[in-house]
Amino acid sequence: MVAKRDHALAQQAVTALFERDQASQALGMKIMAVKPGYARVAMRVRADMLNGHDTCHGGLIFSLADTAFAFACNSRNDAAVAAACQINYLKPGREGDMLEAEAVERIVAGRSGFYDVSVSNQSGELLALFRGQSHRLKQEVIK
Amino acid sequence: MVAKRDHALAQQAVTALFERDQASQALGMKIMAVKPGYARVAMRVRADMLNGHDTCHGGLIFSLADTAFAFACNSRNDAAVAAACQINYLKPGREGDMLEAEAVERIVAGRSGFYDVSVSNQSGELLALFRGQSHRLKQEVIK
Amino acid sequence: MVAKRDHALAQQAVTALFERDQASQALGMKIMAVKPGYARVAMRVRADMLNGHDTCHGGLIFSLADTAFAFACNSRNDAAVAAACQINYLKPGREGDMLEAEAVERIVAGRSGFYDVSVSNQSGELLALFRGQSHRLKQEVIK
Amino acid sequence: MVAKRDHALAQQAVTALFERDQASQALGMKIMAVKPGYARVAMRVRADMLNGHDTCHGGLIFSLADTAFAFACNSRNDAAVAAACQINYLKPGREGDMLEAEAVERIVAGRSGFYDVSVSNQSGELLALFRGQSHRLKQEVIK
Repeated sequence: MVAKRDHALAQQAVTALFERDQASQALGMKIMAVKPGYARVAMRVRADMLNGHDTCHGGLIFSLADTAFAFACNSRNDAAVAAACQINYLKPGREGDMLEAEAVERIVAGRSGFYDVSVSNQSGELLALFRGQSHRLKQEVIK
Repeated sequence: MVAKRDHALAQQAVTALFERDQASQALGMKIMAVKPGYARVAMRVRADMLNGHDTCHGGLIFSLADTAFAFACNSRNDAAVAAACQINYLKPGREGDMLEAEAVERIVAGRSGFYDVSVSNQSGELLALFRGQSHRLKQEVIK
Repeated sequence: MVAKRDHALAQQAVTALFERDQASQALGMKIMAVKPGYARVAMRVRADMLNGHDTCHGGLIFSLADTAFAFACNSRNDAAVAAACQINYLKPGREGDMLEAEAVERIVAGRSGFYDVSVSNQSGELLALFRGQSHRLKQEVIK
Repeated sequence: MVAKRDHALAQQAVTALFERDQASQALGMKIMAVKPGYARVAMRVRADMLNGHDTCHGGLIFSLADTAFAFACNSRNDAAVAAACQINYLKPGREGDMLEAEAVERIVAGRSGFYDVSVSNQSGELLALFRGQSHRLKQEVIK
């Protein structure tokens, strides 16, 4: 069971990180849920997110997954950055789609953490599977 | 040796793809060089590309690499999309940095292709290593 | 809920596959558990599995994970092979260690499937995280 | 240009590592070429290396690539171990095939190194592409 104060700290740390995160804000992302080791983030596919095949640019699907990963791996208030990420694309995103990325902590080992992120659309179809490896910085997100 | 017309076709296919690619344009990307199986793309790190750690959002470094990869794997006028990508982050990007992604074809096997992309800054420091796997669609980029 | 006959088919398909799998047998692997989309396989680290650093050769930890992955992705009696795999090493294996790889199906999309495999030692310490992507062959494992 | 003594040191370090590497020896591997940041290793596919589909077990193709990677990343006499690896399988290996893995250093950044390995058969067909990330241990291979 996760203590109430861990939940509160996760909320505060991720809210602080998001307020400073101009990129995720510019992409219209919204925090849907946060708890220790977990985050869910939404983003609507806008016209200026489409690539030359008229589907959502893979880099922006990745960005959504990456932000959910960043929120999950900073949710314990230990600042961490991405070291390596892998993504598999299963289905394209379309203009107007409301995408959601759910990041779940798999394991924390030393200064490394491993997170699985799923990106789905409003119909629950899986668009991409993402795995991120984080590296802890030895500083706090909020004091 | 690559024939002149292959070079010309690569230029035309990638230019056409870039004109339709609203995401890469909105991120301020510029095509620096294109030839069959190869592309180099630049992007300046803007304030609205920074994350909560005040460095370039990993998703946007990935997006730059992904666009260079897309241009390289569509440069023979066979339309292809990303199937899977992997990125390792070595150094952060800072506001104002002029980043460049260089995509090189490693191998094409059946409908799959493998591309290595390096992302560097204006000082030639390597920020990220990216590997992309493409999937050919059996249609042309330009008729 | 998984029907009894699906369980029985998983057992039969994986047993048949293992009987033909000389490599996994030569490495002393043992099937610990099988059900649809799931397999657990054990292997003891022998002297002839050590590398020049006197720890279990990474390729043999990978082989254990790969066999568990193969059993999980063939457990529905649809023959499938590995297309791509990724492994992260967290801790070394030592001579005499009894390793166990647990493979869990994450998603099946078209002819591709994604599986997560964890490799642990007898103390429950995680040695490696593996993700495998399978490709379905359109034939059965057993008739 | 690489100095003669760097070549000699690479030969000595890798030879010493190979002599202690019981796993690579048990798999019948042979060193074909070594220089700083580079190694080429061969292995014949034996009957006891076949999986249930009657092709070379993916873990053993991986093991060959992993050994070439290990030799390349220890060739400067700085002991290093694998941190993460990725493999894509393009074609199966068959019994009797003489496989060769060629490992090339891409970049060394801090304590991490990145290596690309290609595995081919005796006809020059590419069977697998492997990328390895090494982690330097701060000790020498040979004194």
